[in-house]
This record gives sequence, structure tokens and C-alpha cells, in this order.
Amino acid sequence: MKPKVVILGAGYGGLMTVTRLVKKTGIHEVDITLVNQHHYHYETTWMHEASAGTLHHDRCRYQIKDVIHPQRVHFVKDTVKLIEQKEKKVIMENGELTYDYLVVALGAVPETFGIPGLKEHAFSITNINSARQLREHIEYQFATYNTEAEKRPERLTIVVGGAGFTGIEFLGELGNRVPELCKEYDIDRQKVRLICVEAAPSILPGFDQELVDYAVHDLEAKGVEFKIGTAIKECTKKGIVCGKNDTIEEIKAGTVVWAAGVRGNPVIEQSGFENMRGRVKVKPDLRVEGYQNVFVIGDCSLMINEKTERPYPPTAQISMQQGETCAKNLAALIRGKETESFSFENKGSVASLGEYNAIGLTYGKKVTGTIASIMKKMIDNRSLFLIGGPRLVLKKGKFKFF
Amino acid sequence: MKPKVVILGAGYGGLMTVTRLVKKTGIHEVDITLVNQHHYHYETTWMHEASAGTLHHDRCRYQIKDVIHPQRVHFVKDTVKLIEQKEKKVIMENGELTYDYLVVALGAVPETFGIPGLKEHAFSITNINSARQLREHIEYQFATYNTEAEKRPERLTIVVGGAGFTGIEFLGELGNRVPELCKEYDIDRQKVRLICVEAAPSILPGFDQELVDYAVHDLEAKGVEFKIGTAIKECTKKGIVCGKNDTIEEIKAGTVVWAAGVRGNPVIEQSGFENMRGRVKVKPDLRVEGYQNVFVIGDCSLMINEKTERPYPPTAQISMQQGETCAKNLAALIRGKETESFSFENKGSVASLGEYNAIGLTYGKKVTGTIASIMKKMIDNRSLFLIGGPRLVLKKGKFKFF
Repeated sequence: MKPKVVILGAGYGGLMTVTRLVKKTGIHEVDITLVNQHHYHYETTWMHEASAGTLHHDRCRYQIKDVIHPQRVHFVKDTVKLIEQKEKKVIMENGELTYDYLVVALGAVPETFGIPGLKEHAFSITNINSARQLREHIEYQFATYNTEAEKRPERLTIVVGGAGFTGIEFLGELGNRVPELCKEYDIDRQKVRLICVEAAPSILPGFDQELVDYAVHDLEAKGVEFKIGTAIKECTKKGIVCGKNDTIEEIKAGTVVWAAGVRGNPVIEQSGFENMRGRVKVKPDLRVEGYQNVFVIGDCSLMINEKTERPYPPTAQISMQQGETCAKNLAALIRGKETESFSFENKGSVASLGEYNAIGLTYGKKVTGTIASIMKKMIDNRSLFLIGGPRLVLKKGKFKFF
Repeated sequence: MKPKVVILGAGYGGLMTVTRLVKKTGIHEVDITLVNQHHYHYETTWMHEASAGTLHHDRCRYQIKDVIHPQRVHFVKDTVKLIEQKEKKVIMENGELTYDYLVVALGAVPETFGIPGLKEHAFSITNINSARQLREHIEYQFATYNTEAEKRPERLTIVVGGAGFTGIEFLGELGNRVPELCKEYDIDRQKVRLICVEAAPSILPGFDQELVDYAVHDLEAKGVEFKIGTAIKECTKKGIVCGKNDTIEEIKAGTVVWAAGVRGNPVIEQSGFENMRGRVKVKPDLRVEGYQNVFVIGDCSLMINEKTERPYPPTAQISMQQGETCAKNLAALIRGKETESFSFENKGSVASLGEYNAIGLTYGKKVTGTIASIMKKMIDNRSLFLIGGPRLVLKKGKFKFF
């Protein structure tokens, strides 16, 4: 009777847990099942490229079977609907599973903060499906512009709500993509508007001011208009209504993209976990308070950074590090040993500004320009390496610069 | 005081007229002006490929300046609004021109026969703008399918109204394109429906029955469903309503394409020419009854085939032959000589069924399969050759088979 470990989600956290758990345990010690709604893993942090159309979505995903051990891991392609904690059971669309240990790594979904119309009319950069839909939607707007006797300039207006990592990186890609689209559809570049609306007083919160200024300058040079300190009040079929102080403005736009925040997977709330915006507060060893056998990692987990007294942001870097700790702790529990505490080692972060530019802070050092852009590609390749080794890097890596 | 010849339209007929007139006359004899709404000529007969996305639209067009003599022809990029016959004047969007001789070669627009909703909701295969919009619309439907929690199979349904040349050739291209789209967007091919609705009792009217059967068989094997003898009654946002005898059926479809007929350019009617569906009945020398100085050629002209007692269909082959006769007659008039009568030399016609198959009748011989497909590409290359010589064939020709 081997203990059954079930891991929900094959994102950064889930795949790190699975691959590390296989290495740390023997075949007779544990029975491992991985559940994911697609046959593939996709690079969440590359979706701004797939959405803009600067990198094909097939370059941003790989088959899960290519990175898991075929004899050690049982893969189930299904969508998780509910976790029944008392019965130690996972209910899926097409079946159910029982577990002795559970790892919830189901990732995040967009958070629209109740702003009316966003769910219905705004696009998102969340996953492969939404990214290629957004790419095609933008292309369709450009393709339609010249077919109309009465030209509608708003078809060529793209509003991005949110100037965090995703919003800024997406605008950077559009800076490269828009001139290509203009050529493809015989459109004057001057007619295209890229507008970034951000409620906070600055873009890229948490980034150094010098780097923020660098990014603003670069994106403005690529034609991006910033509306900072401006909140989106409503999204409609025709565009957005936004406001700064007491001034309300309507912006007509054929494309509105919402990139201003995420919350944990709805399965968390539906399964009765205590949570904040779908994120479960976890103990230092990543288990949920009150449960000896349930781990939550990645974007569904909430952990306080003791230095800043604020929660860690949902990033791939943290998810992957948590996956490693989670695998260690699972191995320890199976062997009746003590679990260890997770500690985040911040390797810094780099935000790209299109293909040839980026800004970032790595190991405490500010970087910009080509160097930063190369570092960004190295970070992207490192995720591939950690999960799939050198073979996966060769297959899906970003090499243009090397 | 050289006589001024103004040619309206740089389609097959207009460009043949211009290039031949330049060859037949000297620089001191005549002043030639060509007016066209775009900087480019496009291959109307290739638009089914650009619409399906099997051939890029840039492969289907070329710059007009590349095929006209820079010292002999004055090119005006503008849209013709009205011909004032008495004042011998052409009114355009941004200016006007006077002429001594006029050639109207403004081509055709889709004819919707008053069927409600077609103008608003159906796409067309008419020109570069409409072709790339249709291509992108179809792609957007496929891109959206997997983003919706509740799947809408009608997104993957394409209805083609009309089983003439354009409709059939477009369906042939879709036969090649749909499997690619399914791969791109993770969609099961079985979920895609291609439906051809034709009011007449057969597809490809005028074609030999054996060839028609061949085409039906080939397209059905590629997944096309035929609804023959069935008229489209209405087109809505959701699809079409069609009927056969007393049975009315609603077909939900994300894409409806209208390919069942054309009429002459609206400028004809607006300028007070006597016409039938925008086509002007011309004398044997291609001039309009009652006008010594106005020629109408191509899809705007109406000429009776004396053998069948029916009008010649609007085809590229006839337009180009008319362009040659028109140039000859213009040269004759300028020199005070007699005009000659146009006579159509039918070289046959070939309809493609996707990239590797076709059916046709050339010089009285039936052809099908690869041979027919090669002949189709030779016909396409011949149009390029006649207007732009070997250089244009090398630049824009179709060579895959050779």
C-alpha cells in the first residue's frame, strides 16, 4: 500500500513538484498522479508574446508527457472541479481520484475587481486559448479597417488596463508587432493608438524609479500613451470609461485587454478553503493550516514576506521554488520525517520591453537594454531547463541573441 | 493638342488597354491617364485563395507603377465617383479629369439580389480588403472556439452561398486550409462544417456533367456538404435561413460568404448609362450606343454571345481580350480610321479544387486532377505575362508544380 500523491495542475509549481518528487523517491515508496486540463504545459510568463503575435503559441508550450517519467507518473488529462477534503477526494469533469497527499497548484485566473463589463468585453493574456484569441482579435480589427467605407479609427485603438509586469511586457511586444500589422493591412502607423491605463500612481509597482523612467521613455517612443492614476470604471462593447480624480473620459477602442491582476483558481473557494481572493494562507512548510496532507503552492497560495509584511506576488520564480520545497516535504512525510520551511531566494526580475529591450534588477543590480534583454531570455530558458533539462531548452528555448 | 484618353480602373481590362495602347501609339499621338482607387492591381480570380488564407494577399497583387510605362502613362490614385458624359468629365473623390476618349473598366461588385441581411452579415471574396478580412474572420472564429466555457459549434460552420466558379474554388481552398486551422487551434476536424448552398439545380452552371460530378465528389471527400436547389432567404447575425421547395431550414454559422453573383460598378448607374444590373450594353467595337468616345469593357460591359443568345459571363479572360480590342480601336479612332469588332476566342476555363486538383475544359478537351491543376496555374501565370511580361511572372507567378 504505497501512499498516493495527487498533484493538481501542471504549471510551474506542479511540474517542479512532480519532477523533483520522482528524483527524491523510489518507485516502491510512492504512487504519483498528475492532473491537468490540457495535454500541455504552457509558459504563463510568455503569454504576452503569444497574445501580441510576436511568438507563436506552439513555441510557448510543450507536451507534459515529454517531461514526466512515464513509469513513475500517472497523467490524467481532466479539469478539476472540487476538492472534497474530508473524503480525500478530487472531483473532476470526467472522473474522481482519491489521495493520501494532495498538492494544489492550480494557478490563477484574471481578477476583474467587479468592474462592470470587463468579463464580457475585455480580453486577457492568461493562457494559450486566450492569447491566440487576443492575437486574432487584434488582427481582425486591422483586417476590417480598410473594408469599411466609413473608417472607424477606434478599430486601431488598443487599451491595456494595468501597467504591471504583464501589461507592460505586452505593450513592449505590441511596439514590435504594430508596424508589421500596418504593413500587412495597408494602414498608416499614425492611425494606431496604444493606450495604457493604470490606477496606481506609477507603472511597474515595486520597480526602481530609474528603471520605471527608462521603461516609460522606451514605450512612449514606440507610441504608447500612458494614463497613470486613472481607473477603468467600466468596459463596454465600444471601449472603456475611465476616470482621474473627478474627470471622466470615454475611450473608444476595438480592443480592451485586462492585465491588472489575478486571483487564485475558483476551485479553492468552491472547495471551502479559507482564502483571500482565491489564495490560501499556507504554513512555512507550504501545508494548509489544519491539514496534515494538503499542500498549496504557486498562485493559489498566500505567504507573507516577513521583510515587507506583504504577501509575495504570484510569480513563476516563487512557484518553482515552492515546487522544490513541496517535493522535499512530501518525501519527508512519506518517510515519517520532519518537513522544512520554505524560504524564497529572490534572484531578481526582468521585464521585457519588446524583443530587444528590457529592464530589471538581478542580484541587486539594475540592468537595461540589450544586456537586460539577454538576461530575460536566460531566465525564460532556465524555467525550461529546471523542468525539462537541456533537451527541452534546445527544443523550446529562446536563442536569437546567443 | 494631343487627344486625352482616360482609362478608369486597373483591373484585367484596364491594364490590358493601357499596356497595349502604349505599344500601338507614339508619345506625340496621345495623352494617357489611368485612374485606380489603389496603388496596386490585384488578381480578382485569385481572391478565393487569399480569402481562405492559402495564398498571401501580397502574392495576389502588384504595384501598378511596375507595369505601366512611366513616361507614357499618367497614373492617378483616386476613386471614381461620377462620369459626366456631356462635359466629358470624370469626378473623383479628390479631383476631376477631362477626356476626349474614355474607357470604363471599373469592374464589378457583389450582387445580393435584395436578400435581406446579406450586405450586413455576409462576407465576400471581392477584393484584397474583403479577402483578408474574411481570412481573419474565419481564423478568429477558430481562435475563439476553445476560449468559451460553453462551446458553440456554429463558430466552426462556414456557409458559402453560391456554387459558381468563386464559391466552388473557395470551398476547394478551405478543404486544404481547415486541417491547418484545426491544428493551429487544437480543434477536432469533425467539428468543422463546410456547407455550400446553391439555388440552381447544379453546381458550376455551364460545366460538363462529368466534370461537375468529379468536383462534387472531390469536395464531398474534403468534407463539404452541398445543399443544391436551395435558396438563401435571409442572412442574420447567427447564420442563414434557406429553403428548398416548402421546407425552410435555419443554419447557424459563424461565417457566411456570399459568392453568388456580381453586378457592374455602381458608378455606371449613378452616371446615367442605360444598364442592366450595372452592365452597359456595348456595340461590337465596345463603344456605348450613342457615344463616339466612350468604351465600356470587362464586368461593366454587357455583350451578347450570338451562339447562345445569352450575355457573356464576367470573366478575366473576356476582359483581357476586350482590353486588347479596345486599345486597337482607340488607336484607330485617334488616327481617324475604322474600329474593328470584338470577337471572343474562348480558350476554355479551369476551376481549381484546392491546390492539387482542378477541373476544366480547354480547347474543347476535358481535364481533371493534376494536369488540370497545372493548367490552372498556367492560366494564372498567363494573365501576369500578358500585362507585365516575364519579369512579373517571375515575381508573382505560381510555380510550385513546375
